[in-house]
Amino acid sequence: MALKQSLRGAISPFIVMDVMRAANARETEGKAVYHLEVGQPGTPAPRKVREAAAKALEADLIGYTNAMGIDPLREAIAGHYKTKFGVSVDPSRVCVASGSSSIFVLAFLAAFDAGDRVAMAAPGYPAYHNILSALGIDTVNLPAGPETHYQPTVQMLRDLEEPVDGLIVASPSNPAGSMIDVETYRELATYCRENGIRLISDEIYQGISFGDVKECTALEFGDDAIIINSFSKYFSMTGWRLGWAIVPPDLMRAVECLQQNLFISAPALSQIAAVAAFDCEDELQANIAAYARNREILLEGLPKAGFTKFAPADGAFYLYADVRELTNDSEVFCRRMLEETGVATTPGTDFDRMRGKGYVRFSFAHSEATMIGAVKALQNWKR
Amino acid sequence: MALKQSLRGAISPFIVMDVMRAANARETEGKAVYHLEVGQPGTPAPRKVREAAAKALEADLIGYTNAMGIDPLREAIAGHYKTKFGVSVDPSRVCVASGSSSIFVLAFLAAFDAGDRVAMAAPGYPAYHNILSALGIDTVNLPAGPETHYQPTVQMLRDLEEPVDGLIVASPSNPAGSMIDVETYRELATYCRENGIRLISDEIYQGISFGDVKECTALEFGDDAIIINSFSKYFSMTGWRLGWAIVPPDLMRAVECLQQNLFISAPALSQIAAVAAFDCEDELQANIAAYARNREILLEGLPKAGFTKFAPADGAFYLYADVRELTNDSEVFCRRMLEETGVATTPGTDFDRMRGKGYVRFSFAHSEATMIGAVKALQNWKR
Repeated sequence: MALKQSLRGAISPFIVMDVMRAANARETEGKAVYHLEVGQPGTPAPRKVREAAAKALEADLIGYTNAMGIDPLREAIAGHYKTKFGVSVDPSRVCVASGSSSIFVLAFLAAFDAGDRVAMAAPGYPAYHNILSALGIDTVNLPAGPETHYQPTVQMLRDLEEPVDGLIVASPSNPAGSMIDVETYRELATYCRENGIRLISDEIYQGISFGDVKECTALEFGDDAIIINSFSKYFSMTGWRLGWAIVPPDLMRAVECLQQNLFISAPALSQIAAVAAFDCEDELQANIAAYARNREILLEGLPKAGFTKFAPADGAFYLYADVRELTNDSEVFCRRMLEETGVATTPGTDFDRMRGKGYVRFSFAHSEATMIGAVKALQNWKR
Repeated sequence: MALKQSLRGAISPFIVMDVMRAANARETEGKAVYHLEVGQPGTPAPRKVREAAAKALEADLIGYTNAMGIDPLREAIAGHYKTKFGVSVDPSRVCVASGSSSIFVLAFLAAFDAGDRVAMAAPGYPAYHNILSALGIDTVNLPAGPETHYQPTVQMLRDLEEPVDGLIVASPSNPAGSMIDVETYRELATYCRENGIRLISDEIYQGISFGDVKECTALEFGDDAIIINSFSKYFSMTGWRLGWAIVPPDLMRAVECLQQNLFISAPALSQIAAVAAFDCEDELQANIAAYARNREILLEGLPKAGFTKFAPADGAFYLYADVRELTNDSEVFCRRMLEETGVATTPGTDFDRMRGKGYVRFSFAHSEATMIGAVKALQNWKR
């Protein structure tokens, strides 16, 4: 008799993972690969973080921690909002978890039941849709483009035929890199509050910005949004699997009980080490300066290779390119690009199922040499 | 307008966490506490694991890994089954994740839809019920006691009024410590296969056993069960948050896509270090010998303190005591025990909502000194 396989387990893969596999296979054959596909810093964790980890390895049991995280880290995270935005946060509202990934699981389970509806801009981070869908929550795409700076708007919510229970806003966003300005965001947050829409503010690229739009956090608009952040991007600690949420008071007990049962606690060594991350400003700012140089190399070099239209790239480390004049199938296009030039990129279909066939994402998180090599290879590409 | 809070987020806390908090508060006041509440080894990770981690901290980027884990670890885990049980496992079936906790989430999502029914013995690990419930899966308790060695049986499944879609078996079990013998387990596995019941074999206490019942793995009965294991218990690596599954071929793609989207990958440093865990037999066997001494101290000393009836304790590091002659409310009883003797234990209600008021769990994972102190304190307790 056939054993159960769930329907909800049949979610989409991350297409970027398939690209990575193909890129790695090519590398194994000894061919050059320029890694512009993955959203991962090419730098390790800051030196003081690694030193703190080495010390803890010698002195600490590395056991379970409190479900919500160790107090020194929760206090450091709360203090970070005071320093950076002048916002006071009670450390008891900080939930430390295994990456922003598991924070999404906790937040979605605490806030939404099966059949609830959550809206988000498209293009956007594919795991939003895939996690929500695995948890039985319906997703509502809000097609966004240059006319709204690739961000959701109050008007989009007003235009929905059925109301939604939640809204995810990412600023800076992935893949577009666009940032929502503080006044527009305040309007959106107010509309959400007045219309019973739980706001989830994905701020995991906070700290990586390049220009005109001022950074903000949804904490500035009240305490009812779920704020999600991570040590993976600005703090350059992807493999340490550490993220955090600032949890609205009405969801704190649910998030704590869910964390106890679903995950027990985040990795202890990562937690202990991450306390030092807030004391590494020089090293981290040097990383941002490197991203800024990489971004300039792409913005200057890619147009000469035929890529001319990009989403804003105010922040994060991505250029989202409109390639509709070059292809009507970005998956085929990216595969050819990798084969013929060695440049690995992610097709837009990972981020926007409807319109992604006309877009490609370039990540500039890797080294300057990678960017220079990639631009040269693309300029020489005989398409 | 009120914002959404989910119904499914309202799951129960781990009661043991409340006990830990009370015990820690008492310690802060400078009073003695004997930690027999928490299922955590008092030892750090094996020396070679810590050395491998220290080396990786210096040399490795500590970035994202493949969703299913790094190949050397997957190969080491597969090899472990060959060495220990003579069973061949293809490393591609190994999924490494952030503790057995997140493996449960992946496994339940891959195998079951909302409204499906999963059975398990009571008493049992409380997170089974709580995770399943958060994911909309119905749980079916199979009351088990001395007459079935605290394990589920084919007869219990036959006696159900409605069929179930899944069965969780834990051997050694928590809190009873009972182990299912290989022939009984084979019958149960065969019944499951023939009746369309997906078997989930929780083997996280494997390697910690004290006696007559031979260890086995459900891998010996075929490839359709989900096998779950962990580096937390035998390998003494709780805070490293690392576990694994051997995934049935028909669920592999779903588990991979779920891991990519829900968790990306397990902590990289833990993965790299854990490869060395399979080369630490002497140190780990010394831990088991220490647990065996602790177990003897409790089995000899507790009866003189009025605790006389225990579940088998073939394996794991728990004694599950029937205290119905001493109390009809184990939560009140445990609180008094902590206040009046300093001995922290977990009330049975964490493991069995129906009958747990008459039971208490003693953990003997901590040091010998803790066991000796606890026994003495309980023998002097004027109840």
